[in-house]
Amino acid sequence: MHADCVFCKIIAGQIPSQKVYEDEMMLAFHDIHPAAPVHVLIIPKIHISNLFDCTQAHTEMLGKMALLAPQLAKQTGADNGFRFVINNGVDGRQEVYHLHAHILGGAHPWQRQT
Amino acid sequence: MHADCVFCKIIAGQIPSQKVYEDEMMLAFHDIHPAAPVHVLIIPKIHISNLFDCTQAHTEMLGKMALLAPQLAKQTGADNGFRFVINNGVDGRQEVYHLHAHILGGAHPWQRQT
Repeated sequence: MHADCVFCKIIAGQIPSQKVYEDEMMLAFHDIHPAAPVHVLIIPKIHISNLFDCTQAHTEMLGKMALLAPQLAKQTGADNGFRFVINNGVDGRQEVYHLHAHILGGAHPWQRQT
Repeated sequence: MHADCVFCKIIAGQIPSQKVYEDEMMLAFHDIHPAAPVHVLIIPKIHISNLFDCTQAHTEMLGKMALLAPQLAKQTGADNGFRFVINNGVDGRQEVYHLHAHILGGAHPWQRQT
């Protein structure tokens, strides 16, 4: 856990979240500033900044994040489609430097892009 | 291969593409309608519609797609950041129904969103 990481604090239960899924490796919760009718974040429980810091050792973890997305999309009402988005670094407009995937679903047009 | 799938035709070499990467499982090429200074598509060589049709058997493939993204971002000049985006279904505004991940990089603001 990184002391200054908001997502690590959510994982540790120090900051509340509206959880939609949890297992040993992953946590998913509703984004507090939704950019779409359905806006869920999937995060790994280990702290890693973004895809730039991932190695082959993270292959299964990354595959599980992607595979979890359609399951959670259906669970949260986005069964008609969604975007799976991982922002990386400055030009990727990454805001929190703990790897996370956005599930953006529900009828478009969306109010704003994330 | 699906006879009516444009990405299957690109894989088969029936439609030209500006390749940036190829291995036994994956192909990556520049999007012909770039939505960012760097806009690369990563596609698996097997035909599968989108994440909704993926199962646990695709975990490694999905992990490899995500892991390939930062490597190709750096290779194509998006080492300052990028978005990794998979559009799924109608509400995800998916255009080609062969699973593909967008690498959207380079300095923002982008001209349009994809």
